[in-house]
Amino acid sequence: METRDMLWSGWGDPARATPLPEPTVALLRDLLGVRPAGAAPVALRDVGVPANRLSQDDLDALAATVGAAHVRTGAESRVRHTRGRSTSDLLRIRTGETSDAPDAVVLPATHDEVLALLRTCTARRIAVVPYGGGTSVVGALTPRGASLRGVGSGGFIALDLRRMNALVALDETSRTAVLEPGLRGPAVEALLAGRGYTLGHFPQSFEWASVGGFAAARSSGQASAGYGRFDDMVVGLTVATPEGTLDLGRAPKSGAGPDLRQLVLGSEGAFGVITSVTVRVHPVPEARAYEGWRFVSFDRGAAALRGLAQDGPLPAVLRLSDEAETMAGLADPEAIGSSADAGCLAVLGFEGTAAEVAGRRAAVAETLAGAGGEPLGSGPGDRWEHGRFDAPYLRDALLDAGAFVETLETATFWSDVPRLYEAVRCALIGALAGAGTPPLVMCHISHVYPSGASLYFTVVSAQGTDPVEHWAKAKHAACDAIIEAAGTISHHHGVGTDHRDWYGQEIGPLGGAVLRAVKDRLDPAGILNPGVLVPGE
Amino acid sequence: METRDMLWSGWGDPARATPLPEPTVALLRDLLGVRPAGAAPVALRDVGVPANRLSQDDLDALAATVGAAHVRTGAESRVRHTRGRSTSDLLRIRTGETSDAPDAVVLPATHDEVLALLRTCTARRIAVVPYGGGTSVVGALTPRGASLRGVGSGGFIALDLRRMNALVALDETSRTAVLEPGLRGPAVEALLAGRGYTLGHFPQSFEWASVGGFAAARSSGQASAGYGRFDDMVVGLTVATPEGTLDLGRAPKSGAGPDLRQLVLGSEGAFGVITSVTVRVHPVPEARAYEGWRFVSFDRGAAALRGLAQDGPLPAVLRLSDEAETMAGLADPEAIGSSADAGCLAVLGFEGTAAEVAGRRAAVAETLAGAGGEPLGSGPGDRWEHGRFDAPYLRDALLDAGAFVETLETATFWSDVPRLYEAVRCALIGALAGAGTPPLVMCHISHVYPSGASLYFTVVSAQGTDPVEHWAKAKHAACDAIIEAAGTISHHHGVGTDHRDWYGQEIGPLGGAVLRAVKDRLDPAGILNPGVLVPGE
Repeated sequence: METRDMLWSGWGDPARATPLPEPTVALLRDLLGVRPAGAAPVALRDVGVPANRLSQDDLDALAATVGAAHVRTGAESRVRHTRGRSTSDLLRIRTGETSDAPDAVVLPATHDEVLALLRTCTARRIAVVPYGGGTSVVGALTPRGASLRGVGSGGFIALDLRRMNALVALDETSRTAVLEPGLRGPAVEALLAGRGYTLGHFPQSFEWASVGGFAAARSSGQASAGYGRFDDMVVGLTVATPEGTLDLGRAPKSGAGPDLRQLVLGSEGAFGVITSVTVRVHPVPEARAYEGWRFVSFDRGAAALRGLAQDGPLPAVLRLSDEAETMAGLADPEAIGSSADAGCLAVLGFEGTAAEVAGRRAAVAETLAGAGGEPLGSGPGDRWEHGRFDAPYLRDALLDAGAFVETLETATFWSDVPRLYEAVRCALIGALAGAGTPPLVMCHISHVYPSGASLYFTVVSAQGTDPVEHWAKAKHAACDAIIEAAGTISHHHGVGTDHRDWYGQEIGPLGGAVLRAVKDRLDPAGILNPGVLVPGE
Repeated sequence: METRDMLWSGWGDPARATPLPEPTVALLRDLLGVRPAGAAPVALRDVGVPANRLSQDDLDALAATVGAAHVRTGAESRVRHTRGRSTSDLLRIRTGETSDAPDAVVLPATHDEVLALLRTCTARRIAVVPYGGGTSVVGALTPRGASLRGVGSGGFIALDLRRMNALVALDETSRTAVLEPGLRGPAVEALLAGRGYTLGHFPQSFEWASVGGFAAARSSGQASAGYGRFDDMVVGLTVATPEGTLDLGRAPKSGAGPDLRQLVLGSEGAFGVITSVTVRVHPVPEARAYEGWRFVSFDRGAAALRGLAQDGPLPAVLRLSDEAETMAGLADPEAIGSSADAGCLAVLGFEGTAAEVAGRRAAVAETLAGAGGEPLGSGPGDRWEHGRFDAPYLRDALLDAGAFVETLETATFWSDVPRLYEAVRCALIGALAGAGTPPLVMCHISHVYPSGASLYFTVVSAQGTDPVEHWAKAKHAACDAIIEAAGTISHHHGVGTDHRDWYGQEIGPLGGAVLRAVKDRLDPAGILNPGVLVPGE
């Protein structure tokens, strides 16, 4: 299966660019003062890259490990592997700013080739950024110069895992599959569907993100209520590190020592390169059904979701938009102007046998009706399902239209959800209004647990004169608010370089020191993703 | 709530000693050649302890941190904190052998006192064994002399957490409770029941083991199918280490970095002392029901359990005895000689509202009947429930009767369960028969997951001339077989000193090096439980 390249300056497949719904354009203009953008993005052929910091000898050594055909130094490869897909990343790459480009893109095909690459890069002190789908929104693909500890030249490679894209094994008795890290979401589902199975992991980045990235960034998908987070799905991992191989997971669960799988999950390439992942799989469900519900307020809706999370039954998909997001129609654009735009929209999805879906829908409906919910039928659910991976395309359209848009997310325990919600909203509105670009701040609960939930914020404003700088300040304020309000700095986007300082506050200096000790043991030369994840590097 | 002392030379409350069922005695005599034991155990008042290796200055320093009343050096305290509750531990203590006695028992009352103790012990290089219920069966309370790296005198203290026994907080919205580590199982349930909640954690050691031990040893209870393992229940942890405090868990789940909670869970006191645990709690179920099912073979029964684990619905309790265990009546003593002793007995338990219990029982019954199960009604289930915490008492009776009895457990993925089962059985039978004490080896599946299950073995034989030595060789063979057959060295008993070498094989040299790096960072003087858990110390 060929792995396609994403649009270099935005999201996904250029042919699938989604125009803004007219009500959204009107809202942006009237509410936020959004004005058409100025200069169009530059063309790829006009984008240059910095001089290569690797020597010919370095490049020859890399070629000796993977073959010369799999070491790419051309401008297009380097540009395509520059940074990730945060809005600030996009705004910078659209202007042709490629200062964070890797010096080479290296494509190993096996675990042993990855091991050899890491040995070579350790010996030559070349930094290595493991690269899956390139969809990071937290700066996890931009090693920090000041942090290139002991990496003499400042050069780094993108270690692109796309050639490692096999379904290695399927154990139908244990219902597990061994996946290589370069497989992207649709390829995983296609390979498993051919055998009658599904993984059930559908993050918004599903169409482009990779298995290795899901594991390294502790991803969580839209059907997490039914299938769990990606870290719940993983039962085994193989990791190539500069010091050798970690092979983890002899049983679903074990009482033998700490769960080292959970130390690798979320390690964001700072400890090693994940070269295979063993995951739980499920028979392809016979039936799927989506539906919408309305609640008079976000608090009432959240209480209803909490009831489902704590006492069941749970749908596979469960999300609740706040009043602002419901009004803006992000979850259900066609409902704008209808009666369904009042209050807060919840979207539910059910999967299983036809009888399971029917039974569960009925039980959930009873709970939600008892909690004050009003059923809206399948329309809002089907529309959400149809557009579930389109939001990143919408962002490109907004940027084209002169708006700024970005997202951030957090999680906490249920009793702290209202405080965290208010704290983040106030921080974002205060910072951006103060900068002259008053925003629309929208939120939804995207993942629920018995003891808490995640909050996913979308911020839209005019771009103003310097949107990157405006956002940096607003994001800083939001991160401070999250830590102050006892939230986690990220529920599923990860730490990267963007969240690292707040992550250090979250786990404390001793927690950071533990991560440092692990990194120093596995990557003594500090070549792996320097500046990412580990606080205080 | 006063914390009682356990019988110093056996299990639990002496008043609850359980005599052997007559059929079992006959079986032991006829099948295994068990002969009455020789000398009776010595009396507690006649048991001596080694000379104290701590100086008066050491003891004064300890007293300065917790108060003189909470530093105990009397023989009885030291004997009562000697080793854990493995059969070999009991056989040795019954003879008055106390070479592993701590030099002092120290009882801190607060997190800050624990921190102060660890600083004092670091400065004086006194080893520290965190002590909860004292129920370890893997040698986790016996620091190894050769490993007392840098601990000059060889002296060590038992850091007994029984004074830290409060329900600190109950968050009814998030359904979480903050528990101190010295709380034992019944105290947790009593405190929560007073507020209408249950933790749902019922390991066989429930009546004596502590919350800190549940967390440090990654415990799993009999109702794990319904409530999860203890590591599933934990959402937050506070840990006192020689280098300071770790305070972990801002949300049920997070995408921010590795899950450091899962590095502390299972750390067995080698990284720090757990001083509080935040756990999920549940409303006390309105109804409970237990029942038995019979399967013609262990394989057929295992396949039925796998069906429930993979496709649901799951009872709260789900276990399946093999033919030997069913025949011996360990799960249902009263059924011996009845028709129910043929084949394999499964015990199921259901909890919830009356309607939930009824609905789930019916759905499970349909699945099990379809998988060839025969319903035995509530009798076997109720008898199992009545005696669910009695097996350790039964062990004392067996030892008194001249038999040897011990247990060990493992887990793997479903497709490897038959191979692991046979490998361990063969290893145990081969080793003990070869030593002249042919055993009865029984097994049950005690915990199920969608991708695998645990196997819990019980071994009974004549004691022979040197039961400790006989067992050491058989256990060695069983551990080799587990590793060879791709099982984990322990599903819920832990690593301790007994499993450490095989644990090192399980996680590999690099996995062991990671644990060593973490330990060195948190406990640079190596005072915490030396020789426990971390391979190659």
